[in-house]
Amino acid sequence: MSRHTPLLQQLIDALRILPGVGPKSAQRMAFSLLERNREAGLQLGAALTAAMNKIGHCQQCRTFCETELCHICTDPKRALDGIICVVGSAADQLAIEQTAQFKGRYFVLQGYLSPLDGIGPQDLGLDILGKTLAEGQVTELILATNPTVEGDATAFYIAELCHKRQVKVSRIAQGIPIGGELEFIDGTTLSHAFSGRKVF
Amino acid sequence: MSRHTPLLQQLIDALRILPGVGPKSAQRMAFSLLERNREAGLQLGAALTAAMNKIGHCQQCRTFCETELCHICTDPKRALDGIICVVGSAADQLAIEQTAQFKGRYFVLQGYLSPLDGIGPQDLGLDILGKTLAEGQVTELILATNPTVEGDATAFYIAELCHKRQVKVSRIAQGIPIGGELEFIDGTTLSHAFSGRKVF
Repeated sequence: MSRHTPLLQQLIDALRILPGVGPKSAQRMAFSLLERNREAGLQLGAALTAAMNKIGHCQQCRTFCETELCHICTDPKRALDGIICVVGSAADQLAIEQTAQFKGRYFVLQGYLSPLDGIGPQDLGLDILGKTLAEGQVTELILATNPTVEGDATAFYIAELCHKRQVKVSRIAQGIPIGGELEFIDGTTLSHAFSGRKVF
Repeated sequence: MSRHTPLLQQLIDALRILPGVGPKSAQRMAFSLLERNREAGLQLGAALTAAMNKIGHCQQCRTFCETELCHICTDPKRALDGIICVVGSAADQLAIEQTAQFKGRYFVLQGYLSPLDGIGPQDLGLDILGKTLAEGQVTELILATNPTVEGDATAFYIAELCHKRQVKVSRIAQGIPIGGELEFIDGTTLSHAFSGRKVF
């Protein structure tokens, strides 16, 4: 059976690190770049190197950022009401920003508490968050962590921090998604929606 | 609406050059590398740069190759019967190699004749193929081009080259795929299968 040349094999192996890329897609990607678009391949190589080396974290909210503070943390308008929204990842932050509903600042955990994987409060920057809470400028902290076991555990931990500092803490609503059909919604979500019912 | 930082946006745009990667997947890939695997991201960057710069073409069969001649062209066993198989791309060559059925050499066109896109015989290296045919070592040329308009046109052109040199030329069989169900096979394939029927 034929094998690839060393550099080609190395490229195919390296492409497989991308999420959702298996051996067949990686091979297709490598051939596509080599056949049709070497210039773009070089640009992608340079963009990867630059991004991996130069993108850091905002010193205040921990989102991805190339400067000391991100554009949200440096915007005085976003601090007016003193609300901070805690999210699990930069992708979650982006999803919330795209609703254009929330006008406060963020705190990006970049993960969730997971003692088995050795991820503790320090790894999520909860010491930084604790300091921010201690400064007394925060009027409310909104928890927008994933509704998973890790997300819930992390939410409980952060809620404790808030209670200690007497900061108001809330959590985004859990219930049936808009446009969903009850028939196809899982039982856990449905029972959460019942127990979280509101006066109409 | 929030925008990405410049380097992140540049990385997301660059990732979209990969086949099958849209804006959402590109964003997911960028975040995944930044969050979890910067080391692998750097390796991918280096592998891309090395591959784009250093992978060339075999001087004899035009497949992707880092040396002057590929491992098939340098293997004397593959020249024993003097058969050359003409394929459209290195991926097609690999697919044939994986059947372990064909023991001869290849000629990889790296594309098909397409006058509208300005792709002529020279661009497919057909002058090199013509010289190889003129040397008189080729006993048979097997056409394994795609069964498409461009593949067919290219096959006819190469068949003409062979006729001029009095080299035997054949084409891989077209018909119903093994394991397929007649009910679901398209009409063109089915009528080709009928006109190409063989004595049983």
